[in-house]
Amino acid sequence: MFEARLINSAHFKKVLDAIKDLLKEASFDCSESGIQLQAMDDAHVSLVFLTLRSDGFDKYRCDRNLTMGMNIENLSKIFKCSSNDDTVTMKAQDDADTVTFTFESKKQKISDYEMKLMNLDQEHLGIPETDFSCVIRMPSAEFARICRDLSQFGESIVISCTKEGVKFSTSGDIGSANIKLAQNNNFDKEEESVTIEMQEPVTLTFACRYLNFFTKATPLAQQVQLSMSDNVPLVVEYQIPDLGQICYYLAPKIEEDEN
Amino acid sequence: MFEARLINSAHFKKVLDAIKDLLKEASFDCSESGIQLQAMDDAHVSLVFLTLRSDGFDKYRCDRNLTMGMNIENLSKIFKCSSNDDTVTMKAQDDADTVTFTFESKKQKISDYEMKLMNLDQEHLGIPETDFSCVIRMPSAEFARICRDLSQFGESIVISCTKEGVKFSTSGDIGSANIKLAQNNNFDKEEESVTIEMQEPVTLTFACRYLNFFTKATPLAQQVQLSMSDNVPLVVEYQIPDLGQICYYLAPKIEEDEN
Amino acid sequence: MFEARLINSAHFKKVLDAIKDLLKEASFDCSESGIQLQAMDDAHVSLVFLTLRSDGFDKYRCDRNLTMGMNIENLSKIFKCSSNDDTVTMKAQDDADTVTFTFESKKQKISDYEMKLMNLDQEHLGIPETDFSCVIRMPSAEFARICRDLSQFGESIVISCTKEGVKFSTSGDIGSANIKLAQNNNFDKEEESVTIEMQEPVTLTFACRYLNFFTKATPLAQQVQLSMSDNVPLVVEYQIPDLGQICYYLAPKIEEDEN
Repeated sequence: MFEARLINSAHFKKVLDAIKDLLKEASFDCSESGIQLQAMDDAHVSLVFLTLRSDGFDKYRCDRNLTMGMNIENLSKIFKCSSNDDTVTMKAQDDADTVTFTFESKKQKISDYEMKLMNLDQEHLGIPETDFSCVIRMPSAEFARICRDLSQFGESIVISCTKEGVKFSTSGDIGSANIKLAQNNNFDKEEESVTIEMQEPVTLTFACRYLNFFTKATPLAQQVQLSMSDNVPLVVEYQIPDLGQICYYLAPKIEEDEN
Repeated sequence: MFEARLINSAHFKKVLDAIKDLLKEASFDCSESGIQLQAMDDAHVSLVFLTLRSDGFDKYRCDRNLTMGMNIENLSKIFKCSSNDDTVTMKAQDDADTVTFTFESKKQKISDYEMKLMNLDQEHLGIPETDFSCVIRMPSAEFARICRDLSQFGESIVISCTKEGVKFSTSGDIGSANIKLAQNNNFDKEEESVTIEMQEPVTLTFACRYLNFFTKATPLAQQVQLSMSDNVPLVVEYQIPDLGQICYYLAPKIEEDEN
Repeated sequence: MFEARLINSAHFKKVLDAIKDLLKEASFDCSESGIQLQAMDDAHVSLVFLTLRSDGFDKYRCDRNLTMGMNIENLSKIFKCSSNDDTVTMKAQDDADTVTFTFESKKQKISDYEMKLMNLDQEHLGIPETDFSCVIRMPSAEFARICRDLSQFGESIVISCTKEGVKFSTSGDIGSANIKLAQNNNFDKEEESVTIEMQEPVTLTFACRYLNFFTKATPLAQQVQLSMSDNVPLVVEYQIPDLGQICYYLAPKIEEDEN
């Protein structure tokens, strides 16, 4: 028996928005410690790693480890039928081939959605612990805005990090663009700070397309963390308050002619 | 001479929104008692019955009974040119082949739209008075939401009514869905109540597509009334405050394999 | 060296919105007195004349006259990357083939966009000073609404001006439409006044399509001024507060059968 309840279905809706453009299908691994999802995107370029801790749920019970393969688009359709302040309860029997989502509103309305599960191949990729050369924390909305703006001008974004700040650049037919953020600690509004932990400066190039997919997680967290080292994937990390986190991994582009 | 005036053109705009997806053309029957429109939708599946009482208008005069055939899309275009708080006056001469709509705004702006009338065949269908097994009253926005949500999962909605409440269900490729509303009298906010008058329980199946057309009337009324009996059409009824009502009739689907 | 700074990039964004549907490319003529743009639209039907005075900028320097040919769509893309309250600085070297736009936000974010310039043929058309038979001033949003509404019913709008007021008319397959505005001085809310200076009454016909292009300038000014005389182009004029103005010129349609 698996059962997990969230007082506020909006949290899970936002989690689905953060993965549904990258993943058509995915397996949710449920255990006593919580729910995990680890998957390559459909084009096998980036990796998504989602963790929802059992203690972040308002009720959580998982008698036996369970892997539930789901169509993310269908799952998203179901959650769109809930209001943001509905309570949601997910339930599955051991060895079940369906999962049930029950939404309860404050207005004596109870909605049950039963969805068929899928058998999905999955390979768990080891994610090595890395000491990163640069770790940048910045407002998630600012990062989303920068990726969106620059993707109008080029297909790649160069991220350069030094002690003073971080620079995002691109160039294309129209011309070139550079956006510089200075490090700044905003003690009154911590969520607006730009902070940098740097061992050594790094300059790496990434595909706009994927960065824009990752920023779909923006509503989940006010800050985003970018971790970079030469020759290892960028990690884009959003902490979901009181519930868990979502990390995206993307290998840098290797360019013959680096600017 | 026919003349009818509404202080607030928004009411008539909403009436047009409630019929324009179902009817391409329709005849408005004007008499001393008011304006009536009765028509099958373009696919001849459902029936619309609109009544606007003469005493609901701020000025009303109808010397001779008059039937005005109109293209609803064009009529809707004309009303889109008015602001919600414009006064609207409809005028037609006896035996005229045009109708004029005059919008007066508070800002010394007067707009006249003259529209050509059409000759439409029309058959008036007798609507028999029925004692229904179940009459459900519920918030109109809730009914619209349920129809919209369930139509993502199946083509039909099963409505089951008992003394305790009403259940809306569907199923399809993704899985199945059930939404239950308990009867509840909200005396503080009457418009949020769900009330049921039941002679005997009823379970009937309807096409989502048409229910979704009917809910275009939602902005007209805070509550909707669903009347059901075995083997007779469902009546979906919206009371337009101080002006009249719109009723939609839809025959139940006959399914060999009923859930 | 050319350099011009505006505290608020929103003003220039709105200017671009006012020309980008009419002009694919255009030359900005920069001199000590400010920036001018004069161009026929792509179909060579109407004329746009934009003036931004040097004293309207927060900093302005133009050592030598400079003509910068720009792709307006690309320019508009660049300005979409700025926030409304960003400071924008435009810079170009003498004889440069690029121009740079620098946006500075209050949050220690600096964005540079470098855009390639183009060589554009341009002919400067003399605009003769005319004494107009009628000059109408009215709320710009009302003019935009009227043009939009009437263009649903016909391809041309007839503007008739008398001492009492101004009438906009059209007709087409659906029927006919007339919108009358009475002259009225609203001393409390001057921006809502309709005022008419008339030497003699005028009735002229114009293409809806172009009037709708011109009303893209609506966000720049609360009032619009329409100047009309027989056989000369209509002038549609928006005063940009503290910065300059944009004028559109459109020749009247000559109709064999005038209403």
